[in-house]
Order: sequence, then structure tokens, then C-alpha cells
Amino acid sequence: MERKTLLTHCSDEPGLIAKITNICYKHQLNIIHNNEFVDNTSGHFFMRTELEGNFNDSVFVEDLEFALPKNASKKLVDSSKKKVVVLVTKESHCLGDILMKTFDGSLNVEITAVVSNYDILQPLVEKFDIPFRHVSHVGLNREEHEVKVKEAIDGFDADYLVLAKYMRILTPGFVEHYHNRIINIHHSFLPAFIGAKPYQQAYERGVKIIGATAHFVTNDLDEGPIIKQDVIPVDHNFSAQDMAQAGRDVEKNVLSKALNKVVNDHVFVYGNKTVIL
Amino acid sequence: MERKTLLTHCSDEPGLIAKITNICYKHQLNIIHNNEFVDNTSGHFFMRTELEGNFNDSVFVEDLEFALPKNASKKLVDSSKKKVVVLVTKESHCLGDILMKTFDGSLNVEITAVVSNYDILQPLVEKFDIPFRHVSHVGLNREEHEVKVKEAIDGFDADYLVLAKYMRILTPGFVEHYHNRIINIHHSFLPAFIGAKPYQQAYERGVKIIGATAHFVTNDLDEGPIIKQDVIPVDHNFSAQDMAQAGRDVEKNVLSKALNKVVNDHVFVYGNKTVIL
Amino acid sequence: MERKTLLTHCSDEPGLIAKITNICYKHQLNIIHNNEFVDNTSGHFFMRTELEGNFNDSVFVEDLEFALPKNASKKLVDSSKKKVVVLVTKESHCLGDILMKTFDGSLNVEITAVVSNYDILQPLVEKFDIPFRHVSHVGLNREEHEVKVKEAIDGFDADYLVLAKYMRILTPGFVEHYHNRIINIHHSFLPAFIGAKPYQQAYERGVKIIGATAHFVTNDLDEGPIIKQDVIPVDHNFSAQDMAQAGRDVEKNVLSKALNKVVNDHVFVYGNKTVIL
Amino acid sequence: MERKTLLTHCSDEPGLIAKITNICYKHQLNIIHNNEFVDNTSGHFFMRTELEGNFNDSVFVEDLEFALPKNASKKLVDSSKKKVVVLVTKESHCLGDILMKTFDGSLNVEITAVVSNYDILQPLVEKFDIPFRHVSHVGLNREEHEVKVKEAIDGFDADYLVLAKYMRILTPGFVEHYHNRIINIHHSFLPAFIGAKPYQQAYERGVKIIGATAHFVTNDLDEGPIIKQDVIPVDHNFSAQDMAQAGRDVEKNVLSKALNKVVNDHVFVYGNKTVIL
Repeated sequence: MERKTLLTHCSDEPGLIAKITNICYKHQLNIIHNNEFVDNTSGHFFMRTELEGNFNDSVFVEDLEFALPKNASKKLVDSSKKKVVVLVTKESHCLGDILMKTFDGSLNVEITAVVSNYDILQPLVEKFDIPFRHVSHVGLNREEHEVKVKEAIDGFDADYLVLAKYMRILTPGFVEHYHNRIINIHHSFLPAFIGAKPYQQAYERGVKIIGATAHFVTNDLDEGPIIKQDVIPVDHNFSAQDMAQAGRDVEKNVLSKALNKVVNDHVFVYGNKTVIL
Repeated sequence: MERKTLLTHCSDEPGLIAKITNICYKHQLNIIHNNEFVDNTSGHFFMRTELEGNFNDSVFVEDLEFALPKNASKKLVDSSKKKVVVLVTKESHCLGDILMKTFDGSLNVEITAVVSNYDILQPLVEKFDIPFRHVSHVGLNREEHEVKVKEAIDGFDADYLVLAKYMRILTPGFVEHYHNRIINIHHSFLPAFIGAKPYQQAYERGVKIIGATAHFVTNDLDEGPIIKQDVIPVDHNFSAQDMAQAGRDVEKNVLSKALNKVVNDHVFVYGNKTVIL
Repeated sequence: MERKTLLTHCSDEPGLIAKITNICYKHQLNIIHNNEFVDNTSGHFFMRTELEGNFNDSVFVEDLEFALPKNASKKLVDSSKKKVVVLVTKESHCLGDILMKTFDGSLNVEITAVVSNYDILQPLVEKFDIPFRHVSHVGLNREEHEVKVKEAIDGFDADYLVLAKYMRILTPGFVEHYHNRIINIHHSFLPAFIGAKPYQQAYERGVKIIGATAHFVTNDLDEGPIIKQDVIPVDHNFSAQDMAQAGRDVEKNVLSKALNKVVNDHVFVYGNKTVIL
Repeated sequence: MERKTLLTHCSDEPGLIAKITNICYKHQLNIIHNNEFVDNTSGHFFMRTELEGNFNDSVFVEDLEFALPKNASKKLVDSSKKKVVVLVTKESHCLGDILMKTFDGSLNVEITAVVSNYDILQPLVEKFDIPFRHVSHVGLNREEHEVKVKEAIDGFDADYLVLAKYMRILTPGFVEHYHNRIINIHHSFLPAFIGAKPYQQAYERGVKIIGATAHFVTNDLDEGPIIKQDVIPVDHNFSAQDMAQAGRDVEKNVLSKALNKVVNDHVFVYGNKTVIL
């Protein structure tokens, strides 16, 4: 008995759930969890079905092919570990949490490498016997640096790139190359405080709550599909630095939770939003 | 076109979702929202399906009858307002919130009456042109008082009784009479601080968070199926009285949210738990 | 024995707490609660001292005058109810909560009047025997309407104006006239979604959390000093309308909590921020 | 210029703040942060004062001695790192978070050793060049085992012992030996679910929120002074195992935050409660 997850999405029409579940039933695949969603604005249908049984993948997908609308996207995925390359700059808290969770098995990923424009986090990464690539940006323009970063990344398998406080802006070409595969943690409650120094911005505005946002990276800075957000209360006692310090736990928790949803195939990207089933 | 909600639960077996959704499809009922859950411990299946279309109720239920296991519970409910009788003692905040939400239509109920062992809240209730029945407990034992309360309640239609800070313990007979139809707000994060004076208990224990719990009433005091809980932070500055004051908003919010789920048919009671779909 | 609150703020210098508390001690005023804050960026000192005893107000303030820097602001306030005029448009939830809390005494205010550009909420307000003034904006430009609103307001005593979902933008002249005395509830987590239709904006951005912000009104739209914020989680299931519905409880809770802090003299406005002691 | 923190507590009486701040002023010590609290139930006064200047410790304390009531406790502490020994069993998440935060300097402690009744976490600890002592309980009774644990601990300096998911109950003798110096993380929202398997208990009760509690250990199991608590929502979808998984982040965050407060001298223990200034 195996466990696999079927991800379906297409234009909504009557009978979709019946059709899909009929095929599962016919294949004697037991539904462990099932979640659907119809976006009424766009008329789009999403379904995530965790199945258990003996899979005949090709016949199963063929049957779905036959039953569902032509434009339907169908993906049958197993639960093996996703491969990620983590990009960092100087701060360790998000990376550290991912390293720990990978180490103890609570995050279903294999970190194939860590790439950084500084070498500060090399000792930490190497404690965990994970390859570390230092790609300095010194003396390079953005494009030149990215060529080298890309080379470093592409030396390793990666289903996803995780920007764990990688403090450089990416070019459209880079983002396009890893389309919907780059996950970033932004240290504000987006869309508040887009861009640089969000804690400084938050301090100056005098907000009473700060937050963090994990999102897919697109070419609009900090405007990509949001996966997860969380917040903590602050008050007049917090300097911008205190906010940054207090925000670290939120950042790492939000990033880990977002990553967990993504690598376990709960996240559909549709337009500029996510549907999480 | 009408909207109705189908509530199904039974022992789990393969094909249930397919069977139910097939019948919906056959009846040309469009699925607006669908949620299922299988309790793996008990092997029990739950499904809530919001449908839109032209209903032939009796044929539809007959078809389900035929397709589903013998023990299956099937209920097709429309979205008309549920009738509730509210029981209170002296405090107005939970009652007030329900009155306001009924007044502005954001809670799908009709309050057919308010019953109280004091007359303190009579002026408030009568502002909203709702019958108020004062049933004093003075000079009566618990059973005698309940006979009169029951009489007062039964003069009005009630799908549910809502104990909105009704500070008297109910007898088993009373609870049995309104089986799974009494919703209570308890002013603690159950199962912490069962029984009387939970804020005093919380103060004495020095907790850093207090809460409120909405639950169905059973004969085990404060042990019935939990519908909704929420909490707020407190600290050493809070006296027991400050906690009570701060807890009022949580109490009323939790009760209203629980009530909202119940009257819109999202809540299954199973064993001593709720499944909220 | 009376209870009063001393509010002091001035440029920071060594010995301020000692000087103030010495004078309290000399006047045999017992300190019930004391909170200080120094804003290290601006070098400004804030202190709120709840005192109990027999007050000789003029001598006490004279002594403070003598001991503190020339520019120091000193205010000795008693705990009598603040008078508020509430402005509303069509929605009742924020107003309703304030009415209820005023009715049961849990909010230390007297509502002297409710003013609205619609007459929809008149029946609700009159249940509570509070004057309601309908000032229609139909056929008037912004300035003309505001002249009439101001007339309506000024027929009543008001320490503060509370915009409880008053859906009109105020002119600079109006705002200036009630400088730091107008409290607004904005239905987003500011500074995200400034301006009109924040829930629609939130829906379109696909955020996973929505919020509400209570703030003093200044001439920069939705940019005034923030008093209180809170949030609730949402997900892809929420339409803009669902968000608006779900946000109502947060809005009313945030506004009531902010108001509670303001009318109990916990809030200092300094620059574009609040210090809440 | 040095920074030190003065911790004072004694029976309340008029003039205490004035007396203490006068002495600070006289010593030309600038008050950076000051917080006081009076427990009105017990009539006890607490004050925490962060000071900056040139300290003459002995004269300063002598002056306080002279000015304050005889029973007053006065402690002047610097901000050097506290030494902790961490006790663990098999789970790594709480330990991992403390290791990371010690590594990046965001937690003001030095971990002098990790002691465990299993050797599972030895490889993790040794990555960080911290001594690990494996003290197996196999074949020993509770007292015999504790003698060996105590020996292992006492080979290292420790201001505090941190039970980071140490799954063994301590004897009164052991607890007494490290009076008010043992900090435990309990994986429930105490006082709900005292004792073994709190997530299993939570699952069976059907709660809608789970939590974690950091507290000082006393001889009453899970009844010691609470330092910090936090919660997360759960629902019918969570098995006991899912709750345990979801609870890990809360546990580690709560423990780290509690530890942060303790090692930075914000926490007074008084009776069975904490006052956190």
C-alpha cells in the first residue's frame, strides 16, 4: 500500500468531485483526506486528494484525462522529500530553524546546499554536513553576481529555492528561471512596509503589531502570492532594533510553516494568490 | 434556485464521497461548498455539502438512503433562521452581543425569548421587543425552579437554548430534555478551571493567559463537547476582577462565533467532541 | 480619599522620577500604579501616576511646576466619565458595542449624542435614550455638510468624537477643530490598505490575515497616531464580503479597547505616535 | 559607563519609589528603564530599575539598605551571560532552539553542558562543541539516577537548569537543591492536562486550542510559578500525534521567551507566581 496525493485544478463545472472520486473508487484507492475549493470570482476549481492503495499511475491519470475537462491540470505526487537550496546573507535564525527541522525530520526536505553572498554562516551550515557555497557580490554588478549564484545553485538539485533572509533583490531573469519555485520570507506584514528596512518603517509609523510574510517571489518586489503570515504585538517600548529582534521568531516560524505546506503539496498558485488545501 | 445543506455521517467505507456527489450530480444540484472528515480513531465519516438547485427533497433523500450504509444519518436543512431562547442571570455582555447581532442580521437566529432568574436585564431585552420571562429561584429548590424555567422556555419555540452567562447548574433531567441543544459559555479555557469562579482560580494559579469556552451542555459539569475557544494574555497586573473584566469580550466573541457555526449547521456532535465542517 | 491620575511629559533629564515621586510622597498621595517611558530617539519622558489620597490640586501642581523643567506638561485628571459624540453611517456593529458597554458601565463614557449622514441607525440609538441627529449629505458639498455636522456635534458636550464606521473623509479644517480628539476605526491593518474598500484590497492581494486599526485622525488620511490594532486569520475561502463580515468583531473590539485606553487617560500622543502607559 | 539592573522587593509602604530613585539620582545613575508593581492582595512591592553610570556597588547598596525597610531584598546584577545546564531526553526541538539562539547570541546564556538519560541528542550537541553527559536511567531507581544526574550537572557551573523536554519526574530533594533555578517546558496550557501525555489528553477532550507552559519547577508536579504560556488553534483534523507535531514550535518559542526573561533578570518569583517587570 502506497500513499500519493492527487492535485487537480481546472475551470469549474458540475460533477467534478463526483468524477474524480468515482475514478479513485474504481481504482480502489482509499481517500484519506480530501479538500476542494471553488474560486467563485474566476470560476476555477481546486482539489487535493490524499489517497492510499496500489497505484497504477498511468491508467489512473488516463482515466482522469478522459473524465475531466481538457484544460484540467492533474498531478499525482508521492511523499518523498523535496530538494531545496537555501539562500542566506548574514542572519542565521531562519536558516537555523530549517536546519534543525531537517535534522530532526519534522520538515520533509533535503537541503542540497546553502548559498550565500557572505561566508558568515558557513561554520553553522557545515556542522550539519551540508555543502555551503560562498558567492561574494563584491566587485560584481547584480547580473554578474546572479550568474554566479545560478551556477552555484545549479550544481545541486533543487525543487525549490528558499530565501531565508537573503537580502538581495533578484532580477526578472533569475525569478523567471525558477518560476513559482522561489519562496521568500519578508519581515513585515505585507503589503505594509514593502522594500527595505521594514522594521525601521514600522517603528516610524508607530504600529502596534508587526509581522512576517512568506510568499512566492515574482518580479514585483514583495508582491508575489502570499503563503503564510503571522504577527506579534509591539508597543512604544520597542525600538526598530527591538522589533527586529522580536520579529525573528515570527519570521522563522512563518517561513517553516509555509515551507511545510509547499513541500507537502498543499499549495496551489493561481493568479497572484495561493489556495492552500 | 434554492440553497440547502446536506449533512451526512456514518461509518466510513470506500466510495462514500463518490456516492453522495454522484447523487447530487444526478439531481443537478451544484456543490457550492463541500467538506468531509474521517475520524480515523472511530472510523466515522462526516460530510457537509452546500447545494444549489431545484430540490426534490424526498427523492433526493431516498436516493441517498439507497446508496449509503443503513446506519447513515442524512439531514437536508434549509438556511432559515434558527429559533433560540437565551438564558441569563445578571451580566449583559454576552446577551448584548447576541441581541445586536440578531438586530443587524449578522447572526442567523430569531430570539424568541430571554429567560432569567433575575429581572436585571429585562429593560435591555425589552428595548429589542423580545419577550422577557423572570423566573426567580428564591425560595425554590433546584428542581422546583427548573420546572418553572422549563415552563417559561416551552412557551416559546426553541431550536437551541443559549446559556449566555446563566450562572446556575442544570439538573440531568433538564439537560436530557434538551439533548445537544443547550450551548453554554464557560469563562475559562476548559478543561482548566472547571466549576465556579474560574477567574478567581486563574488569578490564584498565576496563569499568563485566560480564555473562554463555548460548549454543548451535558451532565458532566463543563465537560460537554467543545465548539469554540479563545484566549487573551494577562499578567501579574491583573486582579481576578480585572481578568473578569478583560474576559468579557472573549466570552461574547466565543459564544457568538460558536452560535454562528451551530445555527448555520456546521457542527456535528460525535461522542464528546464536535466536528466542525 | 480620592483617586486622580497625574500625566507628565517633558524632555528627559536625570532625576525626574525622583522629583515627581518625592512630591507625591510629600503630599501623602499613595502611588497606586506608576508607569514611565523615555523615548530614546527624541529624548522625551512620559509618566502616568495613579494616586490616592486627599488632593490639594493647586499646591500639588505648583510644587510640580517648581520642580520640573519649564516645558513640562502636567495634567491632574479625575476619573469622571468622558463625554463622547459618536459619528456613524450605516453599519451598527461598532456603535452597538459602544452602546452596550456604556449601558452596562464597562466603558467609562457618556454618549451625549450620535450623529449620522443616514437615519438608518436612529431606531437603535433611540432604544438607549440617546439623542440622534441625522445630517444628510445629500445635495451638499463636503464643506457645507461639515458645517452642519459641526453644528450638530457642538450642540452637545464632547471630550472626544468617535468615528464608529463613519464613512466620509473629513476636511483639514474639521480635523484641526477637534485636534487629537477624533478617534477613528479603520478596517484594515494600517498602513496596509489605506483608503477606500480595504477588504476588497485585502481580497485582491490574497493576504492571510486581516485587521483593524484605531487611530487619532489627522489630515493625512489613515496616517494618524495608532492606538490599537488587532488581526484575524483568513484564507482563500474568504470573499471580500466574508472578510468584511469576519472583520466586524475585530473592528468593534479594537475600537472599544482603544476608546477604553483613551478615556481612562492612558494615551499620550507624541509626534505621530502614541505612548500608552 | 556601565549598565546594571537593580531588583528590589519588600512590603509596600508609601515613598518607596521616591526613596529608591532618590538614591539613584544621588549616585548619578541614569534610569534607563524602570518598572514597579504592587501586589495589592499581599501588599508586596516589586521594582526593576535598569541603570547606567559609574557604580560604587557597596555604597549604593548601603544607601539602599539604610533607606528601605529591613526586610527589603535588593540585588544589583550586571548583564553578563547566565550559565545554564540543559536536561533533555529524546526530542530535539527545544534544545535545538536554545542551541541556535546561544550560537547567534540572541539568548544571553552560556550552555555549560547538556545532560540526558539517552544518548540520542549527543551528535547534535557536539556539533556546537558543548559537553554532553549521558546518564542512563536503565537499571536505576529514581533516586539512584538522580544522584548521577546531580553529579553530572555539578561538574559544570549552572545558574539555571533548563528542562528542555526532559521527560522524567524529579524528586523533592533534587528540586529543593536547585530551588527556583529549574525551568521546565510543559506541553500543555497549564493547569489543563497536568502530568503525562498532555496531547493525548487534549485530543480526548476535544479542545480547540492547545498550548505550552514554561514554569519554575516545584515539588507539586506542573504546579510551579508560571513564566510564559502560549497557544495555537487546533481542530477535529488533529490526531494526538498531529497536536504533538504542531505543538513543537509553541513549546520551543515559549521556553526560549521564558528563558530570555529569566536570564535578563525580569522575573521575580513570589509565592507560587511570577511578577515579570
